[in-house]
Amino acid sequence: MRKAFAEPFLLINFKTYLEATGKRAVELSQEIERVALDTGVKIGVAPQFCDIEQVANRVSLPVFAQHIDPVTPGAFTGHVLAESVRAAGAAGTILNHSERTLHLHDIEKALQHAREADLLTVACAGTAKLAAAISLAEPDMVAIEPPELIGSGRAVSKERPEIITDSVRKIRSVNSCVKILCGAGISTGEDVYAALKLGAEGVLVASGVVKASKPEDVVMDFCKAVRRYV
Amino acid sequence: MRKAFAEPFLLINFKTYLEATGKRAVELSQEIERVALDTGVKIGVAPQFCDIEQVANRVSLPVFAQHIDPVTPGAFTGHVLAESVRAAGAAGTILNHSERTLHLHDIEKALQHAREADLLTVACAGTAKLAAAISLAEPDMVAIEPPELIGSGRAVSKERPEIITDSVRKIRSVNSCVKILCGAGISTGEDVYAALKLGAEGVLVASGVVKASKPEDVVMDFCKAVRRYV
Amino acid sequence: MRKAFAEPFLLINFKTYLEATGKRAVELSQEIERVALDTGVKIGVAPQFCDIEQVANRVSLPVFAQHIDPVTPGAFTGHVLAESVRAAGAAGTILNHSERTLHLHDIEKALQHAREADLLTVACAGTAKLAAAISLAEPDMVAIEPPELIGSGRAVSKERPEIITDSVRKIRSVNSCVKILCGAGISTGEDVYAALKLGAEGVLVASGVVKASKPEDVVMDFCKAVRRYV
Amino acid sequence: MRKAFAEPFLLINFKTYLEATGKRAVELSQEIERVALDTGVKIGVAPQFCDIEQVANRVSLPVFAQHIDPVTPGAFTGHVLAESVRAAGAAGTILNHSERTLHLHDIEKALQHAREADLLTVACAGTAKLAAAISLAEPDMVAIEPPELIGSGRAVSKERPEIITDSVRKIRSVNSCVKILCGAGISTGEDVYAALKLGAEGVLVASGVVKASKPEDVVMDFCKAVRRYV
Repeated sequence: MRKAFAEPFLLINFKTYLEATGKRAVELSQEIERVALDTGVKIGVAPQFCDIEQVANRVSLPVFAQHIDPVTPGAFTGHVLAESVRAAGAAGTILNHSERTLHLHDIEKALQHAREADLLTVACAGTAKLAAAISLAEPDMVAIEPPELIGSGRAVSKERPEIITDSVRKIRSVNSCVKILCGAGISTGEDVYAALKLGAEGVLVASGVVKASKPEDVVMDFCKAVRRYV
Repeated sequence: MRKAFAEPFLLINFKTYLEATGKRAVELSQEIERVALDTGVKIGVAPQFCDIEQVANRVSLPVFAQHIDPVTPGAFTGHVLAESVRAAGAAGTILNHSERTLHLHDIEKALQHAREADLLTVACAGTAKLAAAISLAEPDMVAIEPPELIGSGRAVSKERPEIITDSVRKIRSVNSCVKILCGAGISTGEDVYAALKLGAEGVLVASGVVKASKPEDVVMDFCKAVRRYV
Repeated sequence: MRKAFAEPFLLINFKTYLEATGKRAVELSQEIERVALDTGVKIGVAPQFCDIEQVANRVSLPVFAQHIDPVTPGAFTGHVLAESVRAAGAAGTILNHSERTLHLHDIEKALQHAREADLLTVACAGTAKLAAAISLAEPDMVAIEPPELIGSGRAVSKERPEIITDSVRKIRSVNSCVKILCGAGISTGEDVYAALKLGAEGVLVASGVVKASKPEDVVMDFCKAVRRYV
Repeated sequence: MRKAFAEPFLLINFKTYLEATGKRAVELSQEIERVALDTGVKIGVAPQFCDIEQVANRVSLPVFAQHIDPVTPGAFTGHVLAESVRAAGAAGTILNHSERTLHLHDIEKALQHAREADLLTVACAGTAKLAAAISLAEPDMVAIEPPELIGSGRAVSKERPEIITDSVRKIRSVNSCVKILCGAGISTGEDVYAALKLGAEGVLVASGVVKASKPEDVVMDFCKAVRRYV
């Protein structure tokens, strides 16, 4: 097992929000890049499949797919191939997001395909127990997101801090080096700071940034919290 | 109901073949475009999601997605949004391919999302009865592909001509203007000619072109058959 | 195509309600049987899989499965085989209920397996268009249930009568003999009467009976409405 | 965590084999019961849903469902409710069989529903890594079955002994008391003996018994191997 990288990591998931589709995916990524360059904080973006190539061509941030399918090259019409995502310029992929869950055995397959295509992996789970279980399959990062808080504006790190500490403990008992992110409801620098304080090594965030009236300001607030913490 | 367009149509599905992934998707599309311009035959290409944007930017052919999900803009991580496909430059989408089937009610939803995003639709079905059923949901085109012949090299128009004639009859009894394609095993101009003769108004083809040693020659053979027929 | 039977038909779906699980499935079926015998109205019951055998052994009503899988005898752990349902005493099966939808091509397969196992079929659809589409696959009965009214207590026959008339028209244009049921929100004899008046030939009902404080009274109310209509 | 029970356990999965459907499920269970009583070996049977009740009524063996759905009592037409399986007389349930896999988060939910309904759980996995992952969710038993050997007649304990030893090691590093079964290709007493020798505490078997010309003899052969081992 390798450690993905050491510093705190912010991963911004564009989901299928219109505010982050097509040209707006590129523009939002450029705003985020400015903050990353200003503050030196490591940030990744996860646009929709059709936008990966143009985003990867226009910004220096690591780009993540939101999902890949557990398929090999061949006759799989309409599926998302690890190699295709990689060829478009992605550095990694999210897997098993609560909005795009996978069968357990497909998680192992998809992780293997991702590794073979040289993609970093962020495997998601909704509970501490499942986060530990998925860590046994050795993704590069694991993201805890209690589904009931996703998109709620109530941050997991404030509302349910024990989920993070419990997850960190359970994950570390089976995997010493997977990078641990947390997410759900994160919308302020305070939320990010609280998450890092509880043992998370980064955050996964979506609507808190994408649906904000000034996304750049929110990301700046997040990055200042990271700087303050480190 | 509107008629998509009058002339015979060749739709080339790139599936997740490595031969048609990334740069090779662009190159293959450019080869196909040369034949289309030379012969005046209407051809569409269906690359993987991540390649739609670059293909649409580089060739004048209509580009189709291989699938869209029945979702609206919002919190649908890892899904394929009609608007995203459209923003990347696609003119249409395949739906319910036998390698990416949909629940019946999702077909109706996806067709509606496609229409709202101004995408042409090619709904696939494996039997004459299902082709008629799906035609009631009013896609722009319907494609009959008996799953057992897909990728077989044995052309539906030669091996099972009665499936095409039966499909045409059943479809026309419920929908007078949906464009009728057929596919599965098509690999020569003769196969294409036979399909048109049986009442198909175009073909859907994948490995017959993508896995050919000289795809451009195969497409030229197809187009000559179309010219001979018209 | 054969006509299932001529008279109006009430099909009572037990879903996974505890009020209709195990012994209570048998007791509820016996109450319903008393009303059926008293009034001469044709009623079917659809208990959970595990209850089919004991219900079929204890009452003379036709028993329906709530679903079958599109599988053949063999290595399909955890699936519901048509022959198994039949061997337990079922006379028919519901298919594609909005709570257990099927891929389009699986509907055709499951209908065929059901016919081969001599099971009557009730195929469900949520819209008039889909009801017509599914009728092309020739189930014995089709049930229109707008998902938004299921379990609502607001009857489709009162709230959205045009869905029933439109469905009847669209279905009859492609299939002259499939028996047409409607459902969603049906909870009084008035609702049943209205449904029959609009052209439905029966109703599919669940919570309106199963969750009622006196199911027997509700079923009696339904049956009186049928008698009044016929 | 509790230990399910101490002695070796044979679980016989009837799948959807016609040889074990309806009356033949009862007869096969009675044959198996005779061997269990003769030899004192603990054996469970897993018939189809529709047969659970009659099998449980006729034999004293613990009966397992082949699957339950992660649903609660309510509006879940066509689903398999833990309480229903329990009410029919089942003592437990298989979960996540390779022929009926579950999304990771549904495994956790289904395990919880099973526990609440007082059902023993046998969670299946195809690899050592996944077997360990699923053990973190604390089923009563875990069954390793490499999918490529299922139904092959080539026993996992003979063909791939290292999968069993590796699984036992990985599972025990995260869960000290889950009972470990193995399966796939088991068809002789030798296969059973080899499995127990490698650290398995029981076997999961299907075609090796159900499709045998004399199932009773095969089960007797298995039981003698257990007796020899213990």
